[in-house]
Amino acid sequence: MSTVSPISLRPRPYSAQAPPAGASSLPAVLPAALPDSALHNAHTLPHPAINRTATAIIYCEGQFGDIDGKTANGLIRHSEKYAVLSVIDSTRAGLDSGMILDGTANGIPVCRDMDDALSQTATLPDFLIFGMAPASGLLSDAQRQVVLAAMGKGMSIVNGLHEFLNDDPEFAAAGIAHKVDIVDVRRPRPKKFLRMFSGDIHQVTCPRIAVLGTDCAIGKRTTATVLTAALNAIGLKAVLVGTGQTGLIQGARYGVALDSVPSQFCAGELEATIVEAFQNEQPDVIIIEGQGALSHPAFSTTSFILRGACPHAVVLQHAPARAFRCDFDTMAMPDPADEITLIETFADTRVIGLTINHEHMDAAQLCLAMDRFAHELGIPVTDALSRPDQHLLDMVFAAFPALQQGLAGAPQ
Amino acid sequence: MSTVSPISLRPRPYSAQAPPAGASSLPAVLPAALPDSALHNAHTLPHPAINRTATAIIYCEGQFGDIDGKTANGLIRHSEKYAVLSVIDSTRAGLDSGMILDGTANGIPVCRDMDDALSQTATLPDFLIFGMAPASGLLSDAQRQVVLAAMGKGMSIVNGLHEFLNDDPEFAAAGIAHKVDIVDVRRPRPKKFLRMFSGDIHQVTCPRIAVLGTDCAIGKRTTATVLTAALNAIGLKAVLVGTGQTGLIQGARYGVALDSVPSQFCAGELEATIVEAFQNEQPDVIIIEGQGALSHPAFSTTSFILRGACPHAVVLQHAPARAFRCDFDTMAMPDPADEITLIETFADTRVIGLTINHEHMDAAQLCLAMDRFAHELGIPVTDALSRPDQHLLDMVFAAFPALQQGLAGAPQ
Repeated sequence: MSTVSPISLRPRPYSAQAPPAGASSLPAVLPAALPDSALHNAHTLPHPAINRTATAIIYCEGQFGDIDGKTANGLIRHSEKYAVLSVIDSTRAGLDSGMILDGTANGIPVCRDMDDALSQTATLPDFLIFGMAPASGLLSDAQRQVVLAAMGKGMSIVNGLHEFLNDDPEFAAAGIAHKVDIVDVRRPRPKKFLRMFSGDIHQVTCPRIAVLGTDCAIGKRTTATVLTAALNAIGLKAVLVGTGQTGLIQGARYGVALDSVPSQFCAGELEATIVEAFQNEQPDVIIIEGQGALSHPAFSTTSFILRGACPHAVVLQHAPARAFRCDFDTMAMPDPADEITLIETFADTRVIGLTINHEHMDAAQLCLAMDRFAHELGIPVTDALSRPDQHLLDMVFAAFPALQQGLAGAPQ
Repeated sequence: MSTVSPISLRPRPYSAQAPPAGASSLPAVLPAALPDSALHNAHTLPHPAINRTATAIIYCEGQFGDIDGKTANGLIRHSEKYAVLSVIDSTRAGLDSGMILDGTANGIPVCRDMDDALSQTATLPDFLIFGMAPASGLLSDAQRQVVLAAMGKGMSIVNGLHEFLNDDPEFAAAGIAHKVDIVDVRRPRPKKFLRMFSGDIHQVTCPRIAVLGTDCAIGKRTTATVLTAALNAIGLKAVLVGTGQTGLIQGARYGVALDSVPSQFCAGELEATIVEAFQNEQPDVIIIEGQGALSHPAFSTTSFILRGACPHAVVLQHAPARAFRCDFDTMAMPDPADEITLIETFADTRVIGLTINHEHMDAAQLCLAMDRFAHELGIPVTDALSRPDQHLLDMVFAAFPALQQGLAGAPQ
């Protein structure tokens, strides 16, 4: 299933947006760009003296542009940590990755294999990023060989899977032998440093808005990133708190890969991350990335997001043309109205707007769906990728008028 | 806060009940009594040739009978794996553990310290069970010394904490030096064997009943155990699936300590455990132990229990005299009616009855509360510890009449 849209939408690659919260204060040097890797690595950081953004090739064989390639797709659209040189996917080799994703060329080629990718670069890339997000979170044998071969060539590995490669004797030995590193992005902090929910979240005085969804891989992180950038662009300080591996690989300064945290600590780890973001950044508003769906039969980590973040408001992301849950093709998608009832029953919050993922819809279908949901649900509806940012901002200001009032005289 | 009841209730120690599902088929030898420890141990099993139930001392300093001593309390009431010789808690030394818990002597003394405990046994106990359940799940320095001293004397350790002692160099070294073992009860299976939710739960054709609650440490496991035993006693085959460390230490044949499983796999691990129980035992009914509360600000693992087990029905455990959440003394307890609405909105199930924990209530208060809830909620209400088992059975039969019909002619 491809996320390529058949309709002609105004392309909105993230590079055209204002940088997300905190990006401007991040120097483009490797140590600062990998702030949390000391917790993720058994090794020390590679190349600490290199004063440039790290370069990377993304491996996403057979899945680039698809739902299971969402880590790669997200990195091509937006990356603070890495300069992405190319994507490896033999099934789309020769195409431009931006054309595949959003219909606009970005100059980042899709390559057949590692040799093809390396033939197009002047120097050896610093990293191979494993950019697939299989439901099981584990490497296949063929994928192991690709990773080991890259290490053999001298590339370090960014691994977003549940399987921690530093814990695997073969990968650990390869790291030592070839003097390269493995960043296991999903590794939670050591158990004795994991934090329990304490209630400190209620000392965070700025509005907290969670972007939840009706399914996995539906655009929650994308909408959250667009919203955060739009808020910062008009002069508010917004901080995005990530909750998945893609956001962490992209360079989110605040985040935790919740799905790999033992369930006892999920709410507490997210709470502590938000409190930290608030204390360090003193933002006007905090945006929290959702995961899965509260109604999802398999991925209901959102329960901990609602408990740990205690969001004042929720924006709900939905794909009207998606009939069945991603990865569960016999389970029907929920009705947004039911998801809203569930969210508002589960937590002391309210859904302030619906955002649309327009996959498999043409322009007319999208228009009709937005009108219908606005009428049925009685809340604002927009599409973060095809509609003006102002619609997203209006959604937030309608719920938090004080935010807008604080902007009087601020640049628009 | 003590769970000692000020009212005179008919004492119902579990030893007076019929054995829970599957217990009768468990031989009282050590290897079979520790079926899953191969996954929990870095070492091999101790004393494989001993043809008797393993003996154990429970360490529960300062907490026996309290909410945070719930692992110890549960083991004193019911243990299939271990013959418990004594409890260590200097603050209650000299008392009978059964008297403290339920007002009936059981001959298991509470001792001042390890020396006191060992002076009362003829042979060295096989295990020290760490029987405290602090919210953080981690050992204090003083507790480390107690555990190391027991290992030094030649006792193996059963550890129900989040901290895996086999991973700690000092404990691992002590295990090797003293030729003793550490059973880390909460350790999930290796990551590559963790299972994702698949939907196979819907192939389990017998009724699945979850015993959930309005708070932590409120008696869910106790009610689930009483219900399972009562069903087995009248000739139905009921299997209890545990979801916490206490049930696993007690000897539950089917269970997973969900709070230590990475959240991505919680629903799947529980689903797979239930499917396994169904395939192996062909039971008439499966009872699933709840955790925390769906509404709990910190412990909402119940979300995965509802998703993974997809229970046909829920029994809700509530303590009417508890004003604030256990461990969160500023957070008010939920109203059972609200919890029921939340559960029934969250999952396609229905709450078929309320069970009461009578802590801090006298007999009249208990009677009044049961009457009031039965009237307000319109569902059966009972107390698994102070009321006849038949009331629990009637609650289940009202919801699943086919279960009772299958019993025609069966011994009552």
